[in-house]
Amino acid sequence: MAVVTPWEVSGEINYQRLVREFGTKEIGPALLEKISSFSKNKLHPMLRRNFFFSHRDLDLVLNDYQSGKGFFLYTGRGPSGKMHIGHLIPFIFTKWLQEQFDVNLYIQITDDEKFLVKRQANWNDVEAYSKDNILDILAIGFDPEKTFVFRDSEYIRHMYPLVLDTAKRTTFSTAKAVFGFKNETNIGWIFYPSVQVVPTFFEKKRCLIPCAIDQDNYWRIQRDIAEPMGFKKASAIHSKFLPPLTGPQGKMSASDADTAVWLTDDEKTVKKKINKYAFSGGQATVEEHRDKGGNPDVDVSFQWLKILFEDDDKKLQKIENDYRSGKLLTGELKSILIEKINSFLSVHAKKREKAEKKTEKFMYSGKLAEKMWAK
Amino acid sequence: MAVVTPWEVSGEINYQRLVREFGTKEIGPALLEKISSFSKNKLHPMLRRNFFFSHRDLDLVLNDYQSGKGFFLYTGRGPSGKMHIGHLIPFIFTKWLQEQFDVNLYIQITDDEKFLVKRQANWNDVEAYSKDNILDILAIGFDPEKTFVFRDSEYIRHMYPLVLDTAKRTTFSTAKAVFGFKNETNIGWIFYPSVQVVPTFFEKKRCLIPCAIDQDNYWRIQRDIAEPMGFKKASAIHSKFLPPLTGPQGKMSASDADTAVWLTDDEKTVKKKINKYAFSGGQATVEEHRDKGGNPDVDVSFQWLKILFEDDDKKLQKIENDYRSGKLLTGELKSILIEKINSFLSVHAKKREKAEKKTEKFMYSGKLAEKMWAK
Repeated sequence: MAVVTPWEVSGEINYQRLVREFGTKEIGPALLEKISSFSKNKLHPMLRRNFFFSHRDLDLVLNDYQSGKGFFLYTGRGPSGKMHIGHLIPFIFTKWLQEQFDVNLYIQITDDEKFLVKRQANWNDVEAYSKDNILDILAIGFDPEKTFVFRDSEYIRHMYPLVLDTAKRTTFSTAKAVFGFKNETNIGWIFYPSVQVVPTFFEKKRCLIPCAIDQDNYWRIQRDIAEPMGFKKASAIHSKFLPPLTGPQGKMSASDADTAVWLTDDEKTVKKKINKYAFSGGQATVEEHRDKGGNPDVDVSFQWLKILFEDDDKKLQKIENDYRSGKLLTGELKSILIEKINSFLSVHAKKREKAEKKTEKFMYSGKLAEKMWAK
Repeated sequence: MAVVTPWEVSGEINYQRLVREFGTKEIGPALLEKISSFSKNKLHPMLRRNFFFSHRDLDLVLNDYQSGKGFFLYTGRGPSGKMHIGHLIPFIFTKWLQEQFDVNLYIQITDDEKFLVKRQANWNDVEAYSKDNILDILAIGFDPEKTFVFRDSEYIRHMYPLVLDTAKRTTFSTAKAVFGFKNETNIGWIFYPSVQVVPTFFEKKRCLIPCAIDQDNYWRIQRDIAEPMGFKKASAIHSKFLPPLTGPQGKMSASDADTAVWLTDDEKTVKKKINKYAFSGGQATVEEHRDKGGNPDVDVSFQWLKILFEDDDKKLQKIENDYRSGKLLTGELKSILIEKINSFLSVHAKKREKAEKKTEKFMYSGKLAEKMWAK
């Protein structure tokens, strides 16, 4: 059975079933068309290709945008280690949204959560990962005047009254039902959801949260208490999970280095990893592959191209057709991906280097950051 | 049955039984003598008269003092409303300790707790009471260079890593067993004990906490985790409860104004309140009283004199003898108390006025405060 919580994703995930179970809505053609009508650029591939597939109140967000009420974006990262390419997905997509709609964005670094949840985590490590992860996030390229990046442990005083109000409105029963807490769960972890909920209250406008579907539990809590607190119910746009190298199920695991490509992997490592581990939808022999063709639907290399690395629909379609027909071999498909990843990582490394200087602005002195610290 | 938790004290309290149940120790003559041998002044009446009656590791604190290792003091106040005279007890006694031993003192204003625990509390009220209560506390007169007064909501960022570490080491099971939390308890309240524990870690020295016995639950949690965290187990010195006006049981209730004398009560109100409500150990008629005498052990006026308002042992003894013999009538006993209270309140009001100017020093710019903010 599939398990999908903020702290565990495993098993074969049926996304349609998640939508039913979580009570979210699928993003249909009508909504895509509406986004398209407002956005400056062509729809992002992650939308076109149904990777961001589910939502809560995205229609209301667009209405608010249309009527001039506006909205704001909120996403985040738990700094439990170095980042892999899957971790970048919400940020890449959020950057696109910020560009299209020119709105404020809050990026929460949940150092408190990771310390509380990871048994082995010590505070110094979490702090080091926070700093490291922020560079990878800023490398994506947000608007420095309209983006506020903050670590919970540093910004907690400014959030605390709202955190307390959120916590006061959430019983242990509710938290237990929503997150599956047990008697052995530590009291910090039980409290933590009230910290993750608060950035949805940073403005009186509607908040849109781009995130993977496993984060939805938090927004269910938020939506029960937001209106009595004088705020709007959070809206969300949910992604699927980038499949781990090792197969189409679950999500990449930070604890198993071979299931992921890390942002610091060098060219050789990427090549070796993809060639060795990337789960293939191809046939056992070249002859058989030429004869029967491969299955791109389960082929991780193809899926990664589709989700992250091949923006051009025509090129992607050709790769799919050729792979399905047997014209394109697994090794050739992997070569395409390896080149794409290495080119991406090389550009990312340069952007990351430049991000070092920008941190100050995003965290303290940019227009939005300054306003948030003055509160 | 008596109930004694940080949030409820009711019923007839058997202090000897509490000592057994909580696993604390009674303060015996040997320990009193030891305190006396180190202190500059005569033992405080609250010690001489066994009002501070129980402890944890007070002997070890004194050993540390003797050997030059030193110790520090920590106490606090939950700002749920205006203060009554009972609320001053830990502060009056703590001031005496600071004077005798010349040590650092941390005073925690638990605004977060009161907001979380009191159903009706709103944040603005709690903030207003915090400011108000701090003036009453500072009127007691601590060393401004060695005392740090802080509101949790304001100082939380500086405490947060240790709060998280404390929370991570405390399961819901443990918190439930120690505090009686239920499924309906809000997740902030469940988390809160980790905030109250942290000031015991402000120094590597041993921490001595003067408090009423109902706060002991927190120190039990602390003592289980302190040493693995690299700190010393908290020591405590516990008081009994000042009996409410209405009778010798329970403690004064902030929700029933007539059971307490408030620091802002005027002379007439005090007189009326004591005469009308103070539970009497006297007889029904003057004749019967002259004949049989009164019972000072249950007489609230006498108990208040003993605990708070008559430092002179000889004078107190005479009052006790005269009341027991029937020479002193209830009305006369009440008059003595009324005069004492009104004189105390008049001095307190003046000190409180002067405290306004000192707040800045105790909270931000005094030697200890400055050091704590620089951390």
